[in-house]
Amino acid sequence: MMERNLAVSNSPSNFVATKEVTVIAPINIAIIKYWGKRDEELVLPLNDSISVNINELYAKTRVRMGSQIESDTVSINGKVVDLNKFSRFSRCFAEVRRMYRKRTMEEREDNKKNVGCFEKIEVASTTNFPTGAGLASSAAGFAAIAFAMGRLCNLNKDEIERVARLGSGSSCRSLLGGFIHWKAGICADGSDCCCEMIAPTGHWSTLRAMVLITSNNSKDVGSTDGMRKSTQTSELLLHRVKEVVPKRVSRLLEAIKSRNFEDFATITMAESNQLHAICMDTMPPLKYMNKRSWHLLRVMEALNTSVGSKCVAYTFDAGPNCCLFLEHNSVLRVLTALLKYCRLSTSLIDKVATSVAEEWLDLRKEVVALQDSITLEGVEQMDHVIEDLIFSHVGAEPRVI
Amino acid sequence: MMERNLAVSNSPSNFVATKEVTVIAPINIAIIKYWGKRDEELVLPLNDSISVNINELYAKTRVRMGSQIESDTVSINGKVVDLNKFSRFSRCFAEVRRMYRKRTMEEREDNKKNVGCFEKIEVASTTNFPTGAGLASSAAGFAAIAFAMGRLCNLNKDEIERVARLGSGSSCRSLLGGFIHWKAGICADGSDCCCEMIAPTGHWSTLRAMVLITSNNSKDVGSTDGMRKSTQTSELLLHRVKEVVPKRVSRLLEAIKSRNFEDFATITMAESNQLHAICMDTMPPLKYMNKRSWHLLRVMEALNTSVGSKCVAYTFDAGPNCCLFLEHNSVLRVLTALLKYCRLSTSLIDKVATSVAEEWLDLRKEVVALQDSITLEGVEQMDHVIEDLIFSHVGAEPRVI
Repeated sequence: MMERNLAVSNSPSNFVATKEVTVIAPINIAIIKYWGKRDEELVLPLNDSISVNINELYAKTRVRMGSQIESDTVSINGKVVDLNKFSRFSRCFAEVRRMYRKRTMEEREDNKKNVGCFEKIEVASTTNFPTGAGLASSAAGFAAIAFAMGRLCNLNKDEIERVARLGSGSSCRSLLGGFIHWKAGICADGSDCCCEMIAPTGHWSTLRAMVLITSNNSKDVGSTDGMRKSTQTSELLLHRVKEVVPKRVSRLLEAIKSRNFEDFATITMAESNQLHAICMDTMPPLKYMNKRSWHLLRVMEALNTSVGSKCVAYTFDAGPNCCLFLEHNSVLRVLTALLKYCRLSTSLIDKVATSVAEEWLDLRKEVVALQDSITLEGVEQMDHVIEDLIFSHVGAEPRVI
Repeated sequence: MMERNLAVSNSPSNFVATKEVTVIAPINIAIIKYWGKRDEELVLPLNDSISVNINELYAKTRVRMGSQIESDTVSINGKVVDLNKFSRFSRCFAEVRRMYRKRTMEEREDNKKNVGCFEKIEVASTTNFPTGAGLASSAAGFAAIAFAMGRLCNLNKDEIERVARLGSGSSCRSLLGGFIHWKAGICADGSDCCCEMIAPTGHWSTLRAMVLITSNNSKDVGSTDGMRKSTQTSELLLHRVKEVVPKRVSRLLEAIKSRNFEDFATITMAESNQLHAICMDTMPPLKYMNKRSWHLLRVMEALNTSVGSKCVAYTFDAGPNCCLFLEHNSVLRVLTALLKYCRLSTSLIDKVATSVAEEWLDLRKEVVALQDSITLEGVEQMDHVIEDLIFSHVGAEPRVI
C-alpha cells in the first residue's frame, strides 16, 4: 500500500494535502462482445457483455491529486497526452469533481478539511504492451485511473464504474476480478448499468489465455468510431442486440458456472465472428482482422476438428491480434499447432514456460517432439504470423501497489 | 437459328429424330443476394433476389438429344464431366424426362411420334471466363442447358426455370433479359418460386458493368456448401431474410424503375457487405474476399467520397472477384482510379475501349492524362490487383445461335 499524504505547503495556515496512489489494472477480453452504445454521452452499451481479465497485460498508473499539482496532466508510457485532443480524460476528471462537489454540498460543514485537496489531477500511466492495437489498452488505462481516483476520493463501486466508463466503456469490466457481467441496463441515466462478478478469480483455475500479437500497428478505425458507424448503419446490429446476445449471455453464464469449456469455446468463437460480421455489415465496412488473424482462426478451427472437440477458442476484438482461451491441459497441443503451422519461434515457447510458472519439465523440447503427431487438414504453414505471445492466467482484479 | 432435326436411322420403320441446338446464356450478378435455401431438394431460396445479366460473360452450349446419343454426357470447356460426381446435371436431365413423361401420359396418342427422341442427352459447353472462381459460371452454364432443353422439348417458362434451378439456383435469373426479380415464394412445391422481368434490357441503357478478376483460383468452399453452413449456423441470416431483404427489394425496384443510380449503388454495396457479414457469422466462418478485393472496395469507397456522391458500386459474390456497376459517364473516372491506385495495366484499358465499342477518342490517353486529377484519401497504391477486366453492357437474355 503506497497511499500517502504529503504535506506540501509552506505555512500551516495554507496546509493542503497532496495524495497519491499507484495501481495496476488488467486488460479484459470480452467473450460476449460490446459493440454499440445506447447513449454516447454516458457511454451506455446497447447490450450486456461478459469478459475475463488477462492478468499479464496491465496498465500501471500513478495518480496524484492536490494543490501541489499545477494542472491536469496525463502521460502514457512517458508521453504527455494533449488533453484537448483526447477529451476522455477530462470527462473522467470532470465526473470525479462533480461527484466530489455533490458530496461536499451534502455533507456541508463536515468536509471543510477536504476542500482544496482536489484542484488538479496528475496521471502517469505505463502499459506492458502496445497501445491502440486492439489490445484493450484504454480499458486497462481508464480502469486504473478510475480505480485510483476511487481510492483517493472514497468513491463507491458505482461511482468508480461510471468514471471508468466515461473514459472507455469496456474499462468498467476491468474493475472486478474473475468473470464479469457488464449489464447494459435500460434506465436513461445509466443508474442500472453496472458490472457484476459472475464467479471469482479462482473459480476456473485451469483456464488460461494466450494472447498472440500479429501486428503492433495501430488500427485504421478506432473502436469508438467503428461502433458508432455500426450503430448508425448496420441493419443486423439491433437484431444481434435484442435476439442473439440475451440467449448467448444465459448460455455463457451456465458454461462459466459449470466450467463447461466446450460451450464456453463455442460461444466465444461465435461472438468473435459475429462482431466482425457486424463490422462487415457497416457502411463503409470495417475490417479489423488481417491475413495473420485469419490464419490463426483457420489453425484453431482445424485443431478443434482434428481433436474432435473444442479444446481452444479464438477471439478477436476490434484489431488483428488474437486471444486464445484454453485449459491448462491443452497448452502443449495448442503450442504444437502454432509451432508447426505458424512457425512460432521457440523463444516464445520459452516465454510460456517461464511467464506464469506453469509446470513443465522442458516445454520447448516437449512441443518440438510433438510436431509430427499433429496434422491439420486444409491448413497450410505460414511464416511470420506471431510477433509476440503473452501467456496468462485469467481473472485478476485491479490492486494498489 | 440452328435448331435441326437430323434423320439418323437406317430404316424408316426405326426412324427417330436427333435434335440439337446451340445457345448462349450470360452470367448474372445479384444486386440483392441469394444466400440460403428454404428447400435443398427443390433448390428454393430463403429470400427474393434481384440481378442483372452481364452480356460479355457467357456460356455457349450445344445440347443434342435423341437415339443417336449413346449416353448422357457433359463436357465443359472440352473436359468431360463425371456425372456421378456432379449430380446436378443428372438432376436436370431427370427433371426434363419427368416432365416429358408426364406430358406424354397426358397427351397420349398424340405423342407417339416423339417417343424415343428423348433417350440420351449430350451437352457441350464452353465459357469465355474461368469457372469455379465466384463468377457465376454454373449460373450461365445451367441457364444455357435449361434454355436449350426448353427449346428442344417445348418446355414452358416455369418448367425451364425449374430445370435451371435444379442445376444451380441462381441460374434461373439468367433466363430473362434486363433486370430480374427472382421471387422465393412460399409454396412447399416451389410452384410460386419464379423469375420476373422488372424492366427490359434497354430500360437503363447507360448502365455498365466492369468485372475485375483478382484471382482465377477456385474458391475453398463452394457456394452450395457455404450457404448450407450459413443456413445451419448463422444467427443473423434469418433476420436478414425476414426483415432486411424485403425492404431492400422494394427500394431497389424503385431505384431501377426510376434509374436512380445513387440508390442502386447504396443497396448494391450494402447487399454485398451483408452477404459477407453472413459468411463471417457462419461457423466456421467463410471468407471469400481477399486482400485485393478489400483494396478495390476501399478504392471505390474513397472514390465515391471524393466525388461526393455514389458514382460506382462494388459487389462481391462468393468469391474474390469484383463486379463494379457504373453509368457510362463514370467510366473514365473509375478507370483513372484503377490506374492510379491499382496499377491497372493499360492493355486492360484498351480492352474497355474495344470491348463494347464505347465512344472515346483515345481512352488510354484520356485515362492517363486524368491521373493527377484524382486523389483518394486514406488509400494507398497497390500493385497486381487486377488480372483481367471485362467491360460490359448489362441485361442480355439467352439466345439461340
